[in-house]
Amino acid sequence: MRGVLTGPANQAAVRRRNLSLVLRTVAARGQISRAAVATEVKLTKATVSTLVEELLTAGLLVELGVTRPGTVGRPGLALGLNDHGLAGLGAEVGVDHLAACAVDLRGQTRARVEIDSRNRGRAPEQVMTDLAALVRATEAEVRAAGLTPAGLTVAVPGLVAPDHGTVERVPNLGWFCVSAADLLRRALLTPGTPAAEGAAPTEGTPPGSAAELPIRMENEANLGALAELWLGGHPSLGDFVHVSAEIGVGSALVIGGQLFRGARGFAGELGHVPVHPEGPPCSCGARGCLERYAGEEAVLRAAGIDPARAAIDHPGPAGRMRLLAKLAEDGDPRVQRALNGAGSALGIALSGAVNLLDPQSVVLGGALADLAPWLLPALDRELHLRVTDRQWRPECLAVSSLGRNGPLLGAAHSVIHAVLDDPPV
Amino acid sequence: MRGVLTGPANQAAVRRRNLSLVLRTVAARGQISRAAVATEVKLTKATVSTLVEELLTAGLLVELGVTRPGTVGRPGLALGLNDHGLAGLGAEVGVDHLAACAVDLRGQTRARVEIDSRNRGRAPEQVMTDLAALVRATEAEVRAAGLTPAGLTVAVPGLVAPDHGTVERVPNLGWFCVSAADLLRRALLTPGTPAAEGAAPTEGTPPGSAAELPIRMENEANLGALAELWLGGHPSLGDFVHVSAEIGVGSALVIGGQLFRGARGFAGELGHVPVHPEGPPCSCGARGCLERYAGEEAVLRAAGIDPARAAIDHPGPAGRMRLLAKLAEDGDPRVQRALNGAGSALGIALSGAVNLLDPQSVVLGGALADLAPWLLPALDRELHLRVTDRQWRPECLAVSSLGRNGPLLGAAHSVIHAVLDDPPV
Repeated sequence: MRGVLTGPANQAAVRRRNLSLVLRTVAARGQISRAAVATEVKLTKATVSTLVEELLTAGLLVELGVTRPGTVGRPGLALGLNDHGLAGLGAEVGVDHLAACAVDLRGQTRARVEIDSRNRGRAPEQVMTDLAALVRATEAEVRAAGLTPAGLTVAVPGLVAPDHGTVERVPNLGWFCVSAADLLRRALLTPGTPAAEGAAPTEGTPPGSAAELPIRMENEANLGALAELWLGGHPSLGDFVHVSAEIGVGSALVIGGQLFRGARGFAGELGHVPVHPEGPPCSCGARGCLERYAGEEAVLRAAGIDPARAAIDHPGPAGRMRLLAKLAEDGDPRVQRALNGAGSALGIALSGAVNLLDPQSVVLGGALADLAPWLLPALDRELHLRVTDRQWRPECLAVSSLGRNGPLLGAAHSVIHAVLDDPPV
Repeated sequence: MRGVLTGPANQAAVRRRNLSLVLRTVAARGQISRAAVATEVKLTKATVSTLVEELLTAGLLVELGVTRPGTVGRPGLALGLNDHGLAGLGAEVGVDHLAACAVDLRGQTRARVEIDSRNRGRAPEQVMTDLAALVRATEAEVRAAGLTPAGLTVAVPGLVAPDHGTVERVPNLGWFCVSAADLLRRALLTPGTPAAEGAAPTEGTPPGSAAELPIRMENEANLGALAELWLGGHPSLGDFVHVSAEIGVGSALVIGGQLFRGARGFAGELGHVPVHPEGPPCSCGARGCLERYAGEEAVLRAAGIDPARAAIDHPGPAGRMRLLAKLAEDGDPRVQRALNGAGSALGIALSGAVNLLDPQSVVLGGALADLAPWLLPALDRELHLRVTDRQWRPECLAVSSLGRNGPLLGAAHSVIHAVLDDPPV
C-alpha cells in the first residue's frame, strides 16, 4: 500500500523528483529550452525556471545559447547537460584483466584504461591495489579536463551482496565473502605504483580523492544489461534477458526497464540452469549446467583445445574467445562444432527462460557477441523448436553492439544515472 | 519517466487513490475507527471523514458500532466493509468440470456451485451455455442475500489475450482464438436450462443481469497464484513461483506482490521448460518438456495406468489425481515411482526457474498440492543439488492450502480487489 504525498514533510521529496524530471528531460533531448521543458514535464514555466536555476548553480546544466531555428515558438536559450561537471567512474575486475573508465553527464567516455592481469587465485588485496592505480589514473585524467567524479561502480564477475560492498562469490577468482569496496577504498588511500606495464602513470594524482567517493560493487552481467538498456540503441527494450560470458556464463533480466534482482539479489544465474540434468559435474556441485556446455573452458575442450595451454598462449581479456572466433572463421570444423553445441545449449536454457518470462527479446552480449555468427544458428533453432506458445521471431534475438565493453560502460553510466535520478543540488 | 501529480486535472485521481487507501486500510484491519484510519494513512481526520462518508453512501463501508475496548484513545464508531454490498463473481472452465462462486467485500464465499463436465473437444458455445447457467444460479443466490455483483472473472486453463476477452490457446480443450467473453455474455443473455444434473436451478434468476457485468477471462495459473498471495496465509510472500497442474502443468510468477505477465502476457509456461532436451515429443511440438514428465497423462502412463481408461473410470475434476494419491497412499510402488519421477522433473525445471529468478519461495498449488507428499522428496532433492549460489532452504518450498480451489477463488477475489483498488463511488 503506497502512502500519499501530503504535508510539508514531502515538499522536499517533490522538489527532488521535479529536479530529476527536468534533468532527465534535458538528457533525453540533448538541448532544449526552458519553455519546452515546462511543456514536456507539465509544470509551470515559473517552477521550471526555479528548478533550472538550481541545476545551473549546481553545475549540472549549462546554457548552450539560442535554440536552433525551425523549432516551434520564440527562440529561447537552450539548456544542455554540463559535460565539464560531474563524471561517473567505472571499473572492472575480470579474470584476465582490469579496467577503469570515466564518462561525463552527457554519457561521453572521457578516459579509459585497461590492462591484462591474471587475477585467478590472487589475493583480493593485490587485485584491488592494481585496480586502484587504474582508478587514480582515470580520475587524474578527468580532473585535468575539469570534471569532478561523483562516484565509482566496480563490475565483478560474481555475486554481490545487497549492501553492494561485499562480493559474495566469484568462483572463477576464488573469492568468497570479500569486503571488496573496503579493500579498494584502502588501496585508493595508499599512493601506489602503476599496477603493471601498460597502466597509465599515477604521478600527479591527488591521493585519497577517489577514496572519498561512494564505491559500489555490482555484478558484471547486471551492468552489461543496463549498458544495453541505456546505450544499446534498441527501440523499446522494456523486458529482456541479457546473456553474457567471460569465463562463466551469466545473464541479467531487465523487466519494465529496471534490473530485476530477485529476493536476495541472485537473479539471472542462467549459467546454472540445467541443460542435460544427467550431464557432467559442474563446479557449482550440480550436473549438466549451461556453463558445462557454453562456458569458455567447456567450449575449448569440445574444440580439442587444452584450456590451460590456451590460457598461456592466448592471455588477456577474451583471449581464448578471440582464438575461437579466429579458428571458426578459418573454417576449423571442430571449433565450429563446439560453438554449434554451445549455441544449442544456450538455446535450450534460453527457451526455458523465454517460456517462463516471455521477454520482448534476448540479447547476446559480452564476449558471446564476438562468437554470435557461429552460435546463432543452433541457438535460434532451439528457440524455434521450444518456444511454441507464441511465435518465436528471429528478430527477438539481438546481438549486443557493446559486446565486451558493456559491463565497464554500465558501471560508469550507473553513476551518471544515479546523479540524474537524484541530482546533488 | 513518471509525470508529476499537479493541477486540478489530477484532483480526481488523488481523490480516487485516497478512497482506495481508506478502503484497503479498513479491509486490512477488519474493523477500525475513522481516527485510526487517519493515523494509518497519514491524512487529516477531516479528509478521512469526507472520504468515509462517500464510501458509506456508496454502500462499500458500514458502521459497525463502538470499537472494542482495549484499543488506545477514545472509543470511536468502528467501520467495516459491507458484506451485504458488492459481490465478486468467479467462474472456472476446467477440462473436466465447470464451477462458479461469489465472494463478498470481506472475502467471504457466499455461493459456490461445481459440476462435472467433459469439456475436451466440446464447442466453446456449448461450454459457455453450461457455464452461464452456473453463473446465473450463483448470481441469483447472492442477489437473494442482498448483494450486487460487481464483475465476473473466468479462469481458463490456457493462454488469454491481453484484452482479457479472447482465449488464445487451450490445447487441452481444443480451443484456439475463442472470443470466450462474448460467448459467455451471449449465453448469459439467453435464459437457459440447468447445465447438467447437479447444477442449481436457474428459476427466478433475472436473465441478462450478469450479462451486463464486466467479464474478464484469465489464465487459471495466474488466478491460483493471486489466490495464494491474497488468501494463502503466507507471511511476506513478495516474490514467488506458483506451480499448479490440472491436465497440463502451469505456473505463475508473482514479483513484488504483482502478477508478472511478461511482454505478451505469456509468462509462466513452466510446463514447456525443457527437462530432458532429447526426451519424448510434447504436444507443443518440442521435446522433453516438463509436461511430458509431470503432466497428468505422463504420470498415469509411468504408473502403468491407461489414461483413456482412467478418464472413464475416474471422471470429474482431478479424478485421476485423486486416484494417484489413493494408490500412492496404499503403497503402490509403480505409482510412487511415477510420482517420484514427476517430482524430480518438477525439481529440475524449478531449479532453473529459481536460478534465474531468485524468488523468496516456490508454492506447489492446484492438484499438485494433493500429491505433495510423494512429489516433495525428489523435488526438494533436485533443488538442493541444483540451486547452489544461495543455500536452498526447504522452507522456501511451500504447499498451497487452497489446492484446487485457488483459481476459482482467485477469479472471484480479483473482482473484489478491483473494487478496492478503484472504488465505484
